[in-house]
Amino acid sequence: MSELRQNLITREWVIIATERAARPDQFSRDTEKKPLPVHSESCPFCPGNEDKTPGETFRISSGGDWKIRVVPNKFAALSPDVAKERLREGIRRRVTGSGRHEVIIETPLHNTPPALFEHNQLKELIRIYVNRYLDAYMDPRVEHVIIFKNHGEQAGTSLEHPHSQLIATPVVPIQFRERVQAAMHYFDDTGKCMTCDILSTELEQKERIIFDTDHFTTFIPYAALTPFHTWIFPKRHSSSISDITEPEVDELALHLKTILGKLHTGLNDPDYNFVIRSSRPKDMLNEYCHWYIALIPRVTKRAGFEIGSGMYINTAVPEESAKFLRNIKAKP
Amino acid sequence: MSELRQNLITREWVIIATERAARPDQFSRDTEKKPLPVHSESCPFCPGNEDKTPGETFRISSGGDWKIRVVPNKFAALSPDVAKERLREGIRRRVTGSGRHEVIIETPLHNTPPALFEHNQLKELIRIYVNRYLDAYMDPRVEHVIIFKNHGEQAGTSLEHPHSQLIATPVVPIQFRERVQAAMHYFDDTGKCMTCDILSTELEQKERIIFDTDHFTTFIPYAALTPFHTWIFPKRHSSSISDITEPEVDELALHLKTILGKLHTGLNDPDYNFVIRSSRPKDMLNEYCHWYIALIPRVTKRAGFEIGSGMYINTAVPEESAKFLRNIKAKP
Repeated sequence: MSELRQNLITREWVIIATERAARPDQFSRDTEKKPLPVHSESCPFCPGNEDKTPGETFRISSGGDWKIRVVPNKFAALSPDVAKERLREGIRRRVTGSGRHEVIIETPLHNTPPALFEHNQLKELIRIYVNRYLDAYMDPRVEHVIIFKNHGEQAGTSLEHPHSQLIATPVVPIQFRERVQAAMHYFDDTGKCMTCDILSTELEQKERIIFDTDHFTTFIPYAALTPFHTWIFPKRHSSSISDITEPEVDELALHLKTILGKLHTGLNDPDYNFVIRSSRPKDMLNEYCHWYIALIPRVTKRAGFEIGSGMYINTAVPEESAKFLRNIKAKP
Repeated sequence: MSELRQNLITREWVIIATERAARPDQFSRDTEKKPLPVHSESCPFCPGNEDKTPGETFRISSGGDWKIRVVPNKFAALSPDVAKERLREGIRRRVTGSGRHEVIIETPLHNTPPALFEHNQLKELIRIYVNRYLDAYMDPRVEHVIIFKNHGEQAGTSLEHPHSQLIATPVVPIQFRERVQAAMHYFDDTGKCMTCDILSTELEQKERIIFDTDHFTTFIPYAALTPFHTWIFPKRHSSSISDITEPEVDELALHLKTILGKLHTGLNDPDYNFVIRSSRPKDMLNEYCHWYIALIPRVTKRAGFEIGSGMYINTAVPEESAKFLRNIKAKP
């Protein structure tokens, strides 16, 4: 029997469609990806082609080589060179395209996705995320920063060389405002952080946990929107990733490696997105927002029902997906 | 220069990314779809296979044959046979899978999508939508009804025989509640319907109009979320499609035929979703909600930024997309 479960963070309902549910392994990629070379002459992100990207913003070096590079997106959606203006014309509201759009080239190796990174490379990557996050918020025109990764064609990437992106917007997304409001209402009702409460319920029930350590828990949410939709929650309450500690960076790298490795092995390298959901550094101390990472394997398509209702039909049972991933041993 | 535009209905921002904008014809499908037979032996929706679908709910006949059939979805997400129960367990909220999930088989012809329908077939289809809409709301357990179509694999369809779907949910989607709230605030501010005001601004500015007649306007929204995102607005204020008149049905069929035909010819049969956004029949007379049809060609992918922010990056300029479609003459 199907059931509807409410995602407390968005308050939206998800239909867990047991009647049409598939076995977890049925979401595995069924065609092999074309193997990639370790270096591609024509790739703007490969070593030797550094002049094909706009002026480098940041790099982590190792000897004479780089390990991670940050560059402005060549086809930037938003630009720091544009003056920020809010315009109102009749009922229209418009803001000039002021902001930032960076590409974080995660590795010099064209064919090595984060699932196959060394632990240290993932730690460096997380540190870079935090560095760029803080840096973007230094610009007073910036109201919100999103760091995300698109892996594979179904996840919207056009360049196969592993990279993440940062977009700093001159407005606060309404989606973010609505999440904050739901979290505030919860805090007003209970005096507690909703995310902390979700996490403690998950840890009590255990059945959706994939991986749990001192500082982080990786699990499939109770109301997972799509098959294998996964959350990585920090256990320490903080609204912003900006105050992450070194032991936490170390463990977060382990969580990313673990979940990405399990997906890579268990579902045959599925396309996925991940995104860091975090408040601004200056809201770091608020009691009701709690940063986390959402990971969304793109193994099904969003269709008319999802677009028209905002609800989702999930054809994988969260408890079964979690059990499947718990039992997967990632190939090294 | 890129700019952000606000979608008044959702209040969310869209980045119109002129720097990375593509010419309208670059969104055209670049691989040919495999031609389909007019009848497929193995298709559960083809004539002769009526026993492969669960008990028929409704049909429109013509002589001894049917023109449109309505059947329960064989893999229903929700079912009328389930008692509706709201359950609260700790912080969890859950509702049993009570509701309805119907398939509307739009034509006996396996290979004929709505873009190629006769005018009368589209009129019958719209009448069926209204009939099923009203019928679903007769069930007191039903709180919201979505009618939608998925055309093509990128739009989430698994069966190629032309069909639409109806899902009746036992909860009100939060997305719908938020839209109603925005519309109420607008009404409280101005004493007017936001949708009526959007439409009159579009008709004044003209540059995003694709097709305009006495009762309906088809246009690309000012803050279109994705390339060729299109709205069909009825000019008469009504909150629900349930009170559509015969002359309106006739014209709506013409609008659907026109826009679907233009997309079919201009973008080489793109995958798309459409959805009817309408209030409940009993809210028909409210002053601030206004029903309409949203049509979303699936020519780009939703990526990490869209998931993480709720905002969209649209790489097509709405005015250019509208101009392109205005000039397309659909092949008959």
